[in-house]
Amino acid sequence: MKKILLISLIMSLNVMAESDQFNPAFLQQLKVLRDQALDSQLAYEITESLTTEVGARLAGSPGDAKAVAWAQAKFKELGFDRVMTEPVPLKRWTRGQETARILSPFPHNLAITALGRTHPTPDEGITAEVVHFATLADLQAADKSEVAGKITFISERMVRSQDGSGYGKAVAGRGLTAQVTAAKGGVAAIIRSIGTDNNRTPHTGGARYDKDIPSVPAGAISNPDADLLVNMLKRNKPVTLQLKLTSHWDGDYTSQNVIGDMLGSEKPDEYIVIGCHLDSWDLGTGALDDAAGCGITMAAAKLIHDTIGPLKRTIRVVLWANEEYGISGAIAYHEAHKNELKQHILGGESDLGADKIYALGTRVAESALPTVDTMMSLLKPLDIEYAGNQGSSGADLIPMRRAGMAVFGLKQDASSYFDYHHTANDTLDKINPESMAQNVAAWIVVTALAAEADHDFGFGLSEE
Amino acid sequence: MKKILLISLIMSLNVMAESDQFNPAFLQQLKVLRDQALDSQLAYEITESLTTEVGARLAGSPGDAKAVAWAQAKFKELGFDRVMTEPVPLKRWTRGQETARILSPFPHNLAITALGRTHPTPDEGITAEVVHFATLADLQAADKSEVAGKITFISERMVRSQDGSGYGKAVAGRGLTAQVTAAKGGVAAIIRSIGTDNNRTPHTGGARYDKDIPSVPAGAISNPDADLLVNMLKRNKPVTLQLKLTSHWDGDYTSQNVIGDMLGSEKPDEYIVIGCHLDSWDLGTGALDDAAGCGITMAAAKLIHDTIGPLKRTIRVVLWANEEYGISGAIAYHEAHKNELKQHILGGESDLGADKIYALGTRVAESALPTVDTMMSLLKPLDIEYAGNQGSSGADLIPMRRAGMAVFGLKQDASSYFDYHHTANDTLDKINPESMAQNVAAWIVVTALAAEADHDFGFGLSEE
Repeated sequence: MKKILLISLIMSLNVMAESDQFNPAFLQQLKVLRDQALDSQLAYEITESLTTEVGARLAGSPGDAKAVAWAQAKFKELGFDRVMTEPVPLKRWTRGQETARILSPFPHNLAITALGRTHPTPDEGITAEVVHFATLADLQAADKSEVAGKITFISERMVRSQDGSGYGKAVAGRGLTAQVTAAKGGVAAIIRSIGTDNNRTPHTGGARYDKDIPSVPAGAISNPDADLLVNMLKRNKPVTLQLKLTSHWDGDYTSQNVIGDMLGSEKPDEYIVIGCHLDSWDLGTGALDDAAGCGITMAAAKLIHDTIGPLKRTIRVVLWANEEYGISGAIAYHEAHKNELKQHILGGESDLGADKIYALGTRVAESALPTVDTMMSLLKPLDIEYAGNQGSSGADLIPMRRAGMAVFGLKQDASSYFDYHHTANDTLDKINPESMAQNVAAWIVVTALAAEADHDFGFGLSEE
Repeated sequence: MKKILLISLIMSLNVMAESDQFNPAFLQQLKVLRDQALDSQLAYEITESLTTEVGARLAGSPGDAKAVAWAQAKFKELGFDRVMTEPVPLKRWTRGQETARILSPFPHNLAITALGRTHPTPDEGITAEVVHFATLADLQAADKSEVAGKITFISERMVRSQDGSGYGKAVAGRGLTAQVTAAKGGVAAIIRSIGTDNNRTPHTGGARYDKDIPSVPAGAISNPDADLLVNMLKRNKPVTLQLKLTSHWDGDYTSQNVIGDMLGSEKPDEYIVIGCHLDSWDLGTGALDDAAGCGITMAAAKLIHDTIGPLKRTIRVVLWANEEYGISGAIAYHEAHKNELKQHILGGESDLGADKIYALGTRVAESALPTVDTMMSLLKPLDIEYAGNQGSSGADLIPMRRAGMAVFGLKQDASSYFDYHHTANDTLDKINPESMAQNVAAWIVVTALAAEADHDFGFGLSEE
């Protein structure tokens, strides 16, 4: 089945230049708009606005409500036809104090940040000896006697790559260290930050949480601090660490998904769903993660609307709530719209910064591949290759994708993304406006062709 | 006079390949050692030891005394012939809390650090409107009515360059903003960090201090925060900042210069003075500034001693106390040795990180230039050029240079140095061991030739 798909794909790519289902005048307008978008500052301006006027916006924090208000106002200012909010219930997690001090043999303050959803230390902290494991697997393999009463430390380094795949490999440590440490009788856990930088700006991020699984306070130390700690441990003297991480669960909160629709002219109840997540971690201003995605997709919809006008289907831009510690917005949207999922024709999320897009991946029905060919013929001038039909999507599309929705992914160069991701350093200056404009051009192409296509993109596609 | 010097210099460089004052066997040994040094890890190991086992060591802090103990032990471990300490009285400055929060129009926490030697805010902080100036000159030109009651903000950017010259241009703002702000009735001062990075790690550094000149609390915000603040100010709404900088003068303290001598075989009372400053700012581990300089010069003296043996003159490695906020060690040494200054034949300090050396500058008598030619013939294989005889020296040699001592400077590539200088990010991982080894090779060449030369290098040379 896969092989047949591949052969049919190669044939269709070779045979077809551009699909003839689309009006040539529309395709010409789209090409002109694509090229104009390369000179547009709109995405950057939206991103500058969100990061400057709202800044950090952790779900449940004061910045959350400000971001929701900002998003509604911005959609209206941009002339979206319909602006809505939908409630997103969540359990609020709030960062507290976070300090880590090596008491002996060589006193030193480590730059640390708590991992999302982990347990707090007592206010006076936890003081214990550090036990070092190179990887999560080493910790998992350790005898309880090695871990009991100690603070575990995993020093695995994330590897840099264009597709960001080093993240997936290293991030298991972040997800599981607190629970694995607890299971072995450890009292707290620290990890080397899941990031590729050498800055004293530790990387936060969610740890797995289940109220029925024991866990311990857990934090990430900056990469230079991890190097230092490894060097100290090499001296074979006990290293004693005092850890204060007073983050905690902080009651119920209702955030909002904010939705802007550019209504379709023929099928207003069919949606091409694009967007970003509106929340950010609390350490930086969430410029790359994910104000950039909001700027890119809001700008794409706005520029299509203003330059080409309404397309057949509705272009729906969803700014998802609380992606960071629970994809709460994605879960709430899926629940609220589960009776109309098939009206969600194709979806994609921009959530990997603002560097140039190098590939399009799709997960659509074979019957829709000719339109993907058309997308590719318009994307190739932007230096974008096709990455196949086993593509994924952003985290916020997971519930709907699993329920069957067709998705696409415009893959951004993530080489430097994980230098800044989930740190205080995630700020506007990390965005290159020119690269960002290339993103907008690509989102315009895919979104407009999907919205104008006469066919759907399939439903109920199997997950690999 | 200058022109004559230059012509004589060019002639001597053209005519002479290597001086014949030196024993050919010695020169051969020196070349072999130079090349061996490129493979030596000793400087890196010393630097790793100081940054790991002591870490931050602001003058007067607990790290200061630990660093002094470390230095004595390390000199002894390395086999220096004579290890001494000399007292350095200083007025202690201690960093306190440091926070800066924009209260309106868009709440945001700025990453800030106090400038050294500035006044404290009250414990509850200072809250006032921000008034923005592009440069120190603009602040100096401002009317008092613009500044009175406000927090001034200078947003000048430091420019990156190989020779670090952008630092000298931008640093006047750090030195003077507190006093200029006070003179115009301002209540506090903040500046964009004097640094070339885009990290949320603000750059500290000394501000000018005179107990008789009014001043105000002053801090540097990180460069991304400066960008954000500029963007907020562009919206033409008053920006209100709450500033807490509780750093303060903290009484008298006696630190130590730590001196390691490799004694000369013929003229043990004549010194070639090399070294680094032992203190660091308190934010990082002072790896580049200036553990690296300690590693480089201690290793150079040690490798000369172990490989070639004693030279005619004593090689004196001085680890200077409190360079950062007062060159207290330099002042104390000059005072203690002022009756034997002429025994200080030539001096240099390594204090600009650990990247490759690209040039040698000197400030020596014309009669010593043939030996400089010999130095250059041995430095050229290390890709080091001659930068002329109007060279400078490290900050700790200023008092003795002004009193007449001949000096040299081995100029390091400073292109990335000011990304990390005076920040929490000044840590060991910023050092490339291979570049550092090239430094050691160059210091070996200059130090050994100066120690073995039959002549002095002049005294009482005029300052430009």
